Amino acid sequence: MNATDWDLKENSVDPMDDRKTRAATWFESLRDMICETFERLENELSSGPLAERPPGRFERKAWRRTDPSMPESDGGGGVMSIMKGRVFEKVGVNISTVYGRFKEPFNKQIPGAQENPSFWASGISLVAHMHNPHVPAVHMNTRMIVTSKAWFGGGADLTPALDMPEEVAHFHKVLKDACDAHDPDHYPRFSKWCDEYFFLPHRGEPRGAGGIFYDYLDSGDWERDFSFTRDVGRAFLDAFVPIVRRRMNRHWGEEEREKLLVKRGRYVEFNLLYDRGTRFGLQTGGNTDAILMSLPPEARWP
Amino acid sequence: MNATDWDLKENSVDPMDDRKTRAATWFESLRDMICETFERLENELSSGPLAERPPGRFERKAWRRTDPSMPESDGGGGVMSIMKGRVFEKVGVNISTVYGRFKEPFNKQIPGAQENPSFWASGISLVAHMHNPHVPAVHMNTRMIVTSKAWFGGGADLTPALDMPEEVAHFHKVLKDACDAHDPDHYPRFSKWCDEYFFLPHRGEPRGAGGIFYDYLDSGDWERDFSFTRDVGRAFLDAFVPIVRRRMNRHWGEEEREKLLVKRGRYVEFNLLYDRGTRFGLQTGGNTDAILMSLPPEARWP
Repeated sequence: MNATDWDLKENSVDPMDDRKTRAATWFESLRDMICETFERLENELSSGPLAERPPGRFERKAWRRTDPSMPESDGGGGVMSIMKGRVFEKVGVNISTVYGRFKEPFNKQIPGAQENPSFWASGISLVAHMHNPHVPAVHMNTRMIVTSKAWFGGGADLTPALDMPEEVAHFHKVLKDACDAHDPDHYPRFSKWCDEYFFLPHRGEPRGAGGIFYDYLDSGDWERDFSFTRDVGRAFLDAFVPIVRRRMNRHWGEEEREKLLVKRGRYVEFNLLYDRGTRFGLQTGGNTDAILMSLPPEARWP
Repeated sequence: MNATDWDLKENSVDPMDDRKTRAATWFESLRDMICETFERLENELSSGPLAERPPGRFERKAWRRTDPSMPESDGGGGVMSIMKGRVFEKVGVNISTVYGRFKEPFNKQIPGAQENPSFWASGISLVAHMHNPHVPAVHMNTRMIVTSKAWFGGGADLTPALDMPEEVAHFHKVLKDACDAHDPDHYPRFSKWCDEYFFLPHRGEPRGAGGIFYDYLDSGDWERDFSFTRDVGRAFLDAFVPIVRRRMNRHWGEEEREKLLVKRGRYVEFNLLYDRGTRFGLQTGGNTDAILMSLPPEARWP
């Protein structure tokens, strides 16, 4: 037996390597599905003030991460997909797979990183800001994190600027069905968690109309948790896309646009003041363009 | 001697009461000077796309603070003065005098509040966002804080969206002269402090073109420190107003406006991610409207 065979055999006993690859590959294929579906929506616009514009297309931009704690090494990277279209005023879909070592004080805040600060993280993150005030903004994110522990996190939530109770109900229903297929406790817990997380205490108001939010999901059965995370990604499309189709051809005026821009101001407040991913990412030297892709193209504080 | 005489005599030996009154009164009269001067600038606009509009006027709105740690008691309050004019797209001038007790963990972060968490704070704070991209945005703040220690803090800084080296030099020159009249070390220290404070690490860029920033100013001679703080307020007007007069009648187009709105996006990022006053104020239950008056009326993240 030569050294190479032995290495291969030795490596093959860690199932986590295979899981990392499968998760990262899934996030990539979900990204492809989403971009394709959103470009189709761009094609379908038939009326409203922007219907004369050509349909938007995603542009992709790869980035590499350098970990300041190990400047000699590759720290992973990601791909931003951005579309500035006629339905989607600005939508960003990031995938990334990064690894390195958490520095103080972050290793204290992350489960399983206190003894060994090494981490691996892969995920997809999406924020869509729409031209039409009758179409809600949406956010979706799912990720797998590995330290000395391993878990999934993510969720999807809707931010309408105008009242649209039927659409909100549809969005929640689709997410609930996806949750219920896995565990009847998921939707009650994760929708509550979403309401608590996406809340602006200084305004005393929620960021949007909720959805689901979960983190540290580690049931002990990785296949089960991965399957749930895949279903959240698929459910996101079923929850959001019909709402866009139903409302994107409506006309709107200055008054509705103003409401949209003020709501977006609150969105900016939440993301910069409270969002863990945003603040954590910026503080740990993450890719600024990718992190702040969530900010709306335009916002107002009148 | 009856109890009342004795009380009066006892109280009269604390010079801090008189100092508090004098500082709070100064901040009020500085506010009046500034509002009057800015309304005069509104009158003077003679050309450019907005000259047909009527000149703007300040509107005042008082607010009361309630300290959650002592719900039965008055926690002070303030007055917001806001003008949405034709030169000033949105300018807010806040004065406030508040008092109460710092809660954990804030008492640990404030000099002199560890043993006794009682505080008193009075100040003026101003942010002006201009319609015309050729006129810079400006920020000014001065304050007196009393815990078991007492000190002044404040400063003024300029945020141009376009290149204007002469105006930046004028702004710095006026502040430097005001500093030099008090202490030759002030300007070098406080302008450096300003550059360090108003910096966006995630962008690797400064928020603006600098100015001065100082805090914890307690030379041991309160009169001297108060005199310096008054001069900073006066110098702010001499530093900023001539720049507005010189440039407010220039014409501008979409390209310059876009640069202004993107620069304002950076301003929002700084204030919500890093500004101590903003984050501290929101976390300690300050007046949200007054704190977030600093946010621009419109901003873009294209």
